[in-house]
Amino acid sequence: MRIAIDAMGGDYAPDAIISGAVEALALLEKGDEVILVGPKEVIEPKLPKKTSYPATLTVVHAPDVIGMDDPPIDSLRKKPRSSISILAKLGKLDRADAVISAGNTGACVAAFQMRMRNLQSVNRPGIAVVFPTFEGPVTICDVGANIACKPINLYQYAIMSSIYARELFGIQNPRVGLISIGEEDAKGNEVVKKARELIKQDPKINFIGNIEGRDIFKGVCDVAICEGFVGNVILKLTEGLIEGLVKAIKQEIMTHEFRLIIGPMFKGLMKRFFKKHDYHEYGGALLLGINGTALICHGASESRTIKNAIMAVKKYHGININGKIAEYLSASNIGGEEEQNAEPEEEGLRARDEQ
Amino acid sequence: MRIAIDAMGGDYAPDAIISGAVEALALLEKGDEVILVGPKEVIEPKLPKKTSYPATLTVVHAPDVIGMDDPPIDSLRKKPRSSISILAKLGKLDRADAVISAGNTGACVAAFQMRMRNLQSVNRPGIAVVFPTFEGPVTICDVGANIACKPINLYQYAIMSSIYARELFGIQNPRVGLISIGEEDAKGNEVVKKARELIKQDPKINFIGNIEGRDIFKGVCDVAICEGFVGNVILKLTEGLIEGLVKAIKQEIMTHEFRLIIGPMFKGLMKRFFKKHDYHEYGGALLLGINGTALICHGASESRTIKNAIMAVKKYHGININGKIAEYLSASNIGGEEEQNAEPEEEGLRARDEQ
Repeated sequence: MRIAIDAMGGDYAPDAIISGAVEALALLEKGDEVILVGPKEVIEPKLPKKTSYPATLTVVHAPDVIGMDDPPIDSLRKKPRSSISILAKLGKLDRADAVISAGNTGACVAAFQMRMRNLQSVNRPGIAVVFPTFEGPVTICDVGANIACKPINLYQYAIMSSIYARELFGIQNPRVGLISIGEEDAKGNEVVKKARELIKQDPKINFIGNIEGRDIFKGVCDVAICEGFVGNVILKLTEGLIEGLVKAIKQEIMTHEFRLIIGPMFKGLMKRFFKKHDYHEYGGALLLGINGTALICHGASESRTIKNAIMAVKKYHGININGKIAEYLSASNIGGEEEQNAEPEEEGLRARDEQ
Repeated sequence: MRIAIDAMGGDYAPDAIISGAVEALALLEKGDEVILVGPKEVIEPKLPKKTSYPATLTVVHAPDVIGMDDPPIDSLRKKPRSSISILAKLGKLDRADAVISAGNTGACVAAFQMRMRNLQSVNRPGIAVVFPTFEGPVTICDVGANIACKPINLYQYAIMSSIYARELFGIQNPRVGLISIGEEDAKGNEVVKKARELIKQDPKINFIGNIEGRDIFKGVCDVAICEGFVGNVILKLTEGLIEGLVKAIKQEIMTHEFRLIIGPMFKGLMKRFFKKHDYHEYGGALLLGINGTALICHGASESRTIKNAIMAVKKYHGININGKIAEYLSASNIGGEEEQNAEPEEEGLRARDEQ
């Protein structure tokens, strides 16, 4: 399998990306290839002189870089030789079987969608993140690919995420919740209410109805569906809250009379706890609905995150999630009157720079 | 001051409401009156035979009850003698200076808006919740009154919440953040982007720009503005996540070799921690923008929550937040071309049942 990585994407690029890619070589098989995409003069001096692994490492030159905060579409137009653009092109031309980036999420989504196109019958792709909750993994989709969400998109996120949760975690009939502001059927905005009607029509989805923010951590569902704005707020809020909570507990301990005893115990406990609930272990989030395997990693990805991301795409590719999604959608007529698989450049992407 | 309370609203009504009201009597002054609204035959047997407090307790009969999950507008129409309807009427007729309910939030917002009306120049009211974060109190508005949010609403939430944070917490120039999916100016959906332009035009608002979900707990802002759907998800997610996290840490402790030592220490520590970050202490959330003082309490309100809620409205009423909001808005022309103070029954409320 050939896996291409944006060497310039992420807060710790290129060093963390390059060392993560090198670490992954040890775990890959003969015939596998890791392709680092970025400026040759930056990457090559950082590579080990010689490796003894069966998998190979290649560099594909891309002289330009799109910054984490640059406007996505505008940057892609102005920098056709950026690492993200070239990465997407490798995916399009079948030079790579999977693409990975920890860079500008908006630019990645736009580039993958424009170059690699959507899967047959998919209207808009969505980013699926796995929350390692205390009650088991919960897949949340979308967390930021699509902030102009239509009911058909939410319906398709329910399908795609169900297949993802089934194939990845072995959950036979994943329970799907639609994030809203109350559990009752009548609660929600217009998009949510219309999406609920679409999802309900599909007997193959194990739909449990509306869920609230608090339910995500309660083990009531395996998949939670929402529009990208809401999902993005959920993702970042969760990160910030856990960080803040641990900091506050630490402060509380430091004023405790037995802080010298309780402090080290708590540290060990937290270490064990975070190992179980660590996004670095998951590698990244799959962009569901793209005609290819595309993984979007956290901006703060470390080398082990990248190593895990490479191993994750190998797994995703092997279980052929895309084939199963395409098969499902080709047999479904629900929401068929809504425009499906619109030209991505026409539909929504133009507005992405203003997102 | 005369404070009316929905005796039938909340998961622990009427018992928790009635005992909270009775507890508050001990803290109120001569001339103060607490008015319990609900079925006389239910409330009166639960009242103490005789109290020796200077403040008085009255019962106003309301035979019907709107359930926590009933459709708001439809229920208000069908049950004009429900405790929420009568409560709102007491506010309208100046029989009460403040109204409090822990009942159906949608029905409360609709009833207060229809009966008591909006403050002059306010387009839509918003629920302001105080998050007692580790870095200080953060006021978040709106958390669920308005899920068909317009830019002018977000601008007015910024004004009203700034006044609230200043008057309540003594923060002289509250820093206002607009919740979006990235810090850069170009990030956000259409409503957020237009709201940012409105807020920026007002030099009296200490606007720090977009914030992300994680920033709420980082001490970067005193006020966070968002539309009601997003705010409601934030509110409930935070509750659920803290609950889940504490549960997970507890489980981790139970498998720890020193659980007999660390367990009780952690319990004491958590108790202290939660006392600082406890919504029961805040009593409830003010509905900003209503022509009156209206407090919406958590559905799980206990008697101490209700007691604190009564003391909170007394404080709010005393510092005249409404007078300061009206003064500010009457001097501001920003967003003036947008429809202001539309008839609430026409504008949005009709759709509330489908929310």
